[in-house]
Formats: sequence, structure tokens, C-alpha cells
Amino acid sequence: MKAILPLSALLVATPVLAENAAPSPPEIVAAAPKADWRAIAPADLLVMDLSPRRRGAERRVVIQLMPAPFSQGWVGNIRTLAAARWWDGLSINRVQDNYVVQWGDADGEDPDKARPLPSGLATVPEAAYRLDGDEPQWPRFANLTWPRGTVTHHDTFEKGWPVSAEGSANAVHRWPVHCYGMVGVGRNLSPDTGTGAELYTVIGHAPRHLDGNIALVGRVIEGMEFLTALPRGTGALGFYEKERERVKIVSVRLGNAVKGLPAYEYLATESESFMRYADARANRRDPFFIRPAGGADICNIPVPVRRAK
Amino acid sequence: MKAILPLSALLVATPVLAENAAPSPPEIVAAAPKADWRAIAPADLLVMDLSPRRRGAERRVVIQLMPAPFSQGWVGNIRTLAAARWWDGLSINRVQDNYVVQWGDADGEDPDKARPLPSGLATVPEAAYRLDGDEPQWPRFANLTWPRGTVTHHDTFEKGWPVSAEGSANAVHRWPVHCYGMVGVGRNLSPDTGTGAELYTVIGHAPRHLDGNIALVGRVIEGMEFLTALPRGTGALGFYEKERERVKIVSVRLGNAVKGLPAYEYLATESESFMRYADARANRRDPFFIRPAGGADICNIPVPVRRAK
Repeated sequence: MKAILPLSALLVATPVLAENAAPSPPEIVAAAPKADWRAIAPADLLVMDLSPRRRGAERRVVIQLMPAPFSQGWVGNIRTLAAARWWDGLSINRVQDNYVVQWGDADGEDPDKARPLPSGLATVPEAAYRLDGDEPQWPRFANLTWPRGTVTHHDTFEKGWPVSAEGSANAVHRWPVHCYGMVGVGRNLSPDTGTGAELYTVIGHAPRHLDGNIALVGRVIEGMEFLTALPRGTGALGFYEKERERVKIVSVRLGNAVKGLPAYEYLATESESFMRYADARANRRDPFFIRPAGGADICNIPVPVRRAK
Repeated sequence: MKAILPLSALLVATPVLAENAAPSPPEIVAAAPKADWRAIAPADLLVMDLSPRRRGAERRVVIQLMPAPFSQGWVGNIRTLAAARWWDGLSINRVQDNYVVQWGDADGEDPDKARPLPSGLATVPEAAYRLDGDEPQWPRFANLTWPRGTVTHHDTFEKGWPVSAEGSANAVHRWPVHCYGMVGVGRNLSPDTGTGAELYTVIGHAPRHLDGNIALVGRVIEGMEFLTALPRGTGALGFYEKERERVKIVSVRLGNAVKGLPAYEYLATESESFMRYADARANRRDPFFIRPAGGADICNIPVPVRRAK
């Protein structure tokens, strides 16, 4: 009895097991044909380099920006801020356990010290948190409906992103979902919606009470561990209290301005491979499991993203 | 536009706001009468002291053990292991981002090096992952039903713990839920169910595919940040690859064997205060929010636990 918890067959499935058992979610992803993968344009990446750790190890966080039709007002602002090198020299200011890591201007609330924003930023209305209109042709995931009291929200994936919707007849509202690793826009009290200068990422259980209340603009696709493993802040809401606690941001650039950046791709959520992957996440049949769940929360079906081969 | 994201009114609600706005979840908890709180017996706590960090700061993790009727075979083993001081000198061996932190014997898989287990440990059958029987008198939380395909699972709270159930008529199966911070028992492939010597805690989105497949024995109630902020392991499944990466466990003791331990209490999930708190978590009406969700995932309603006043 010297069990070391496998907890998943992610990397330990042997050929013998794979031959006799149902494929695990990672095995399905690994077997997906090239045609089921979609390239992510470098211009749709945001690359944040943090100050190196002791011993000089680099800390690069790669974020995929949200594609149209969602959140494009804020995404446009983020492109402007990156082009202006606005974040360079600023810092990670907040790490609240089971909630968010937030970065931007630590002096942003102090009019005498705040870094001026570049010109040309849009003020985006609250209406842009959600999209209105006819229901798109979504793939159907039978086990993903998430009820909210009297309103049934329909969770699904649209163009590679977790999305939820509510509505009746053909008229729906839909919006991206606050899953682990999603990146959102800090704001003050309504009607402020934020510019995109203050950003955060989710590091705990999906805080879905924020859905439709705050803009989501992307997701971390590499380097998440450089944010999640930071010491938790001891101030209110997890803000750091001392300057020396704040990790410095060396630079934030759009991917097409970064030399030598790898190519990235994601598994198309409309593909047959993704359907099989989502089903396997909802019904684990690989050897470790004795009782498939019969369903899954959308945030337990992370969209596979990888460096292109 | 120098927004520093409040994201919640947790600690910034002013008296003026509180007077004019609906109370936030933390305000409801703070106003709960003493009668709504339940003391946690020191014997039901597991206290794990990790090796101090640089500059000597202590790292204490306090775990509340699962009460009857759940998982008592494994909890009994954990009491035996703590009494035998079995974990002392062992280590944190695995940190997998958005999944688990795991501790125990890093040499557990090597028969020549594994630390022998104490005598008297029970072998617990898989049937004990779930309880069978009539549905208990649960409080009803209207917005918590979580469907899983053809089976509707009913999520609720029982004696202060997140629990899910499925069934028909009055016969149900029920089991504790893998929310953030819950502590479970590592195991090898079925029919092994683990002894309780290898433990893990959830540090990401609730991995509910593990529910009913692995034993849950408690939850971290203090010091979670000493586990969640550890560097992620670079080996398969997030295991550390080098001895020097592993944080040492100085000691693990039951709470009644620890001098000077604070008293802890949790908010009774049957209380009116908890009902109001759960409703407020599902329908945020405090000033930051513009659109209440109308429902919440059970893992977004963490049971309040605090040091007793």
C-alpha cells in the first residue's frame, strides 16, 4: 500500500492499457487529425514577460485574445495599450486565493502617480458584456446545460471558447464564461466598464457570478503557473501591501511583435475530435475511473491548445 | 480611468454602501448570530506544519476532517497515521496546476525505500465512496440542481459539507463533492481505495469526475495558500522531479495534540443565515454587480469557517 495517486491517466497510460481500455481525453486529443486544429494568428496573442526569477529563469505568459464577435471594444484597447508599451515596468498587484491574479498600474488609484493612458482608447458600454441576437448554429453538448433558478442557461462552445446563453424562442443573449485561466478587464463601479489596462485571470473555481458583469477578453494558453504560484497578497482582496512583493512586468507585446514566438493552435470545438474529447471528459472510462460522472461542467472541458507541430 | 478592480465588496464595503444596498455574502456571514455557528472539535482537525520558508515564516495548514456518516473508514486510518507520526519528515510531492497538491511518501512506490505503514489500518471498500439509503432531511437550495445527462444530481449541503445525490423515489446515493480545498485520498487502480497515507487537496476548478471514484476526507480551513502557491511540478502529473523541490512536512497531528491551537467554527448549513448567504452568492445584489446570476454552482458557495471569537 504505497499508493502514489495517479488521479488521471494523462501521462501514465501505457500502450497495454490504451489497447484494452477506452481512450482518455488526452489520448483523444493526441489522436486528433491536423485538420481539426486551428492556427492562432500571432496578432491575436498577447505576450507578457515578467521579471526573471532567481537563477534567471524566464517567466513568459502567453494570452490568446478573444476573437469576434465577443468583447472587441476592450480587445481593441488592449492592442492600443500593447502598441504603446503601456504595461512595461508595471506589476502584478493582486493575488487572491481561489479567485484572481491581477496586473496593471499599482498606483492607478492615485491621480498624482498614475501612469497616463494612451490616447485612442474606447469607452465600451455595459451592453457589450453580452451579445444579443439569434442563436448561432452551435454544436450540441447534451450534458452541459447549467440551470440557474428560473432561467436555464445553455453552456456550449463557440469558435473555441466557452460560452453561455439564455433566451426564449430564437432571441438569445450570450456571453463568454469565467473559466479557470480566462482573462478579464478590471473595472470600478458601474457604469465604468474598464479600459483593458487592468487585467486579471481566474485562478480558482469559475466565478460565474462575474459573467455578464465584467468583460472577458482572452485566456492564458501558456505560462499560467507563473501567475498561479505567486504568493497570495495579504491586503484586502489579495492586494500586495508592499512594493517589493509585486512582480515586475518587463514587457507586454502583441505576438506579431515578438521574435521567435512559437506557433499555437487550438482544437476546433466544432470538430468530431472535440465532441469525442468533451464526451470523454463527461464520462471518464479510462482505467482509473470506476464510475463515469455522466456529465461535466463546461469549465471542466478546457479547450485544448498546444504549440503547433 | 485608473480602475483597480474591486471584483467583490468583500472588504471594501463602506457603511454608507451597506446602508443603501443589499448586504454582500460576507456581510451576511458577519451578521450571523452566534447560535448559527457550530464549534469544530479539536480532535476533528488535522494540523500539518510544513518546513518554514526563508526568513523563518511558519507554514501551518489546518484541515477539518469529514464527520460521520461520510468516509469514516479512511478518516479512522488518518487518525491512526497521525498518532503514529507517520507523515513527519515526509513531503509535498506533487503540484499540478488547476488540479491538486499531493503529499505523503515520495518513495512510496519503491519497496526498498517506502516508509512502512503503521499497523491497524483498515482496507476500505469502494462501496464506501457513496452512502446508500433514504434521502435525509436536507435544506432545499432552489438554484443548486446540477444535471448530468440523463441523471439529475441534486447538490446541497449536509452538516456543513457540500454533498451531491442521485436517486429515485426515496432511495438515494449521496457523496461529498470535490470543491476547491477539499482533501481526498490518493489511490492506485481499482480495487485499491487508498489508506489515507497519500492525501491531496483540490487547487483548481472542482474536478467532479472524481466524485464517487475516490474518497474525500476533509477540507483545508486555514493555510491553503501554503499549498496553492507552491511551484508547479515539472514531471508527469505535476510531480516534482528533484528532492530539493519537495517541501518537507515537519509534523502532522490531530488538533487535540497541538498546544495553543485556536478554536474554529463553521456556519451551520441548516441555519437561516446560511440560507441567506447561499442566496446572496447566487444572486449578487451588492453594488459591484449589475446583473445577478440567478443561481450558483455549489462550489461557489464555500461554507464559512472562521476562528471562534
